[in-house]
Amino acid sequence: MHGKEIVKIFDLSIYLKKQQEIINSALDKWLPLPHGPSGPVVDAMRYSLMSGGKRIRPILLIAAAGATGGDQKALLPAACAFECIHTYSLIHDDLPAMDNDDLRRGRPTCHKVYGEAIAILAGDGLLTYAFELMCKPELTQNISPLLLKDAVFLLAKAAGVSGMVGGQTADILMEGQPVDAETLSFIHSHKTGSLIQTSVEIGGLLGKASDEELYHLKRYGESLGLAFQIKDDLLDVEGDQEILGKPVGSDNRNFKATYPALFGLKETKRRAQELLEKALSELECFDDRAEPLRSIARYIIKRDR
Amino acid sequence: MHGKEIVKIFDLSIYLKKQQEIINSALDKWLPLPHGPSGPVVDAMRYSLMSGGKRIRPILLIAAAGATGGDQKALLPAACAFECIHTYSLIHDDLPAMDNDDLRRGRPTCHKVYGEAIAILAGDGLLTYAFELMCKPELTQNISPLLLKDAVFLLAKAAGVSGMVGGQTADILMEGQPVDAETLSFIHSHKTGSLIQTSVEIGGLLGKASDEELYHLKRYGESLGLAFQIKDDLLDVEGDQEILGKPVGSDNRNFKATYPALFGLKETKRRAQELLEKALSELECFDDRAEPLRSIARYIIKRDR
Repeated sequence: MHGKEIVKIFDLSIYLKKQQEIINSALDKWLPLPHGPSGPVVDAMRYSLMSGGKRIRPILLIAAAGATGGDQKALLPAACAFECIHTYSLIHDDLPAMDNDDLRRGRPTCHKVYGEAIAILAGDGLLTYAFELMCKPELTQNISPLLLKDAVFLLAKAAGVSGMVGGQTADILMEGQPVDAETLSFIHSHKTGSLIQTSVEIGGLLGKASDEELYHLKRYGESLGLAFQIKDDLLDVEGDQEILGKPVGSDNRNFKATYPALFGLKETKRRAQELLEKALSELECFDDRAEPLRSIARYIIKRDR
Repeated sequence: MHGKEIVKIFDLSIYLKKQQEIINSALDKWLPLPHGPSGPVVDAMRYSLMSGGKRIRPILLIAAAGATGGDQKALLPAACAFECIHTYSLIHDDLPAMDNDDLRRGRPTCHKVYGEAIAILAGDGLLTYAFELMCKPELTQNISPLLLKDAVFLLAKAAGVSGMVGGQTADILMEGQPVDAETLSFIHSHKTGSLIQTSVEIGGLLGKASDEELYHLKRYGESLGLAFQIKDDLLDVEGDQEILGKPVGSDNRNFKATYPALFGLKETKRRAQELLEKALSELECFDDRAEPLRSIARYIIKRDR
């Protein structure tokens, strides 16, 4: 544990902090600046985008590219595109017509600050900007246009009605109704899983993973996406218990579509652990360069926020 | 005017009808079908998309590609992408938080039929689907991936905060306020002009126009986009006169941001005619294959709806 060996110890918190800094600085540099009659919508986009998210999706993309020795710097625009899409989905989900949330990460939501019309437009602007950034000529000279075309297709598919938008639709429509395991699985895999899985897949694709590597990265991403949502459900329940003293299972009586509500806490935790192990097993064919992906998987299951 | 010469007469109404059929059939075939828990959002997307629009933007893209002898069939996905984006913008503009319109083309607007949440998601779904369709591997085998990357960039830029979303933002923010010529020009060129101009540009780009041809197509598109919005303003005023007997210039007193309100009817008509002539002059270096573009320019100025 001395000298050279020390550098081999992978410290996830240092890695995440460094990647978050790189991503935040790129987003700040690449996003348009507010000016002219449309300035307020750019203000609103920046307000929501630069509000301290974990940047899990762009980091997964970069880590997946790194696992196969791909050029991580060249993939930064694609990584940032995922954060633009994730943020747009939060802005629209928070709207009064949807989840009607006033607070997000401790700050007033976009529509509380800028009004509903500008919040809708800020979401539209961020969703559209994701594709502009991903294909910006001066930022994509070192990426194969053929691979980039496939990546745009995969991202759009994951974000649209076959993915995230489809999941949010089902979630909205099932609100207050009893949800069976099949529908819950549909909501989770589409609303959250789809974008997380695809961030890993696009990292591998643009990082020039072999077919075999790409196969395993996709399966890693699939397990991770589901694990991420299950852990979110667990945090909801356990967070509630600590803060409100609410008994476990109250979500169940409210027909809230969560894993603990359907399967109970113990079974849900077992399932999360199983998914972690499955995700890790998919990385067995990778060397040390996949250490960030392994650590992120463990972190996603163990995180307390 | 006999025999062979007859085929040289270009009939725009036949051309438009045929292109509309091709585009409608492609949209119907390529759009997802509603099934599963997210079915209603696909229903809403289809409801708004298949409601009898003029399909001006996709037709302009195809006509621009045709003017340089490009493969028009290969560009159908990109053409349909423009209609998806145009339709999403109508759905979101009609929302209660925006223009709060109940009717569109004589039918209830999307949110009146499906509710606000699903209408927001249907708009998001159509915007996202535009990029999915444009890059779908099995539909884009005959297009250069490098050109397609540039086209995705141009479309996103034209649709986003630097274009359409920026124009709609300014329009919303200036509602009920006096608007000067500069702001009016900003709103028009961004909200409507941007997407029309870019449909022509992408048609030329993907149709492999030379640099010189592309230069003139872009300038044609610029004049056409502005002429299109000015004509819309004129139809508003003159339509109002016929139906409501409202005196010319009432928009002016309501501070409505239109050309007739700022410059008067006569000057606005002169400006529209000037833009038509400018658009036509940009096509002088093209042969008969640009006849659809020439006829569309004349039609846009002379149309009565």
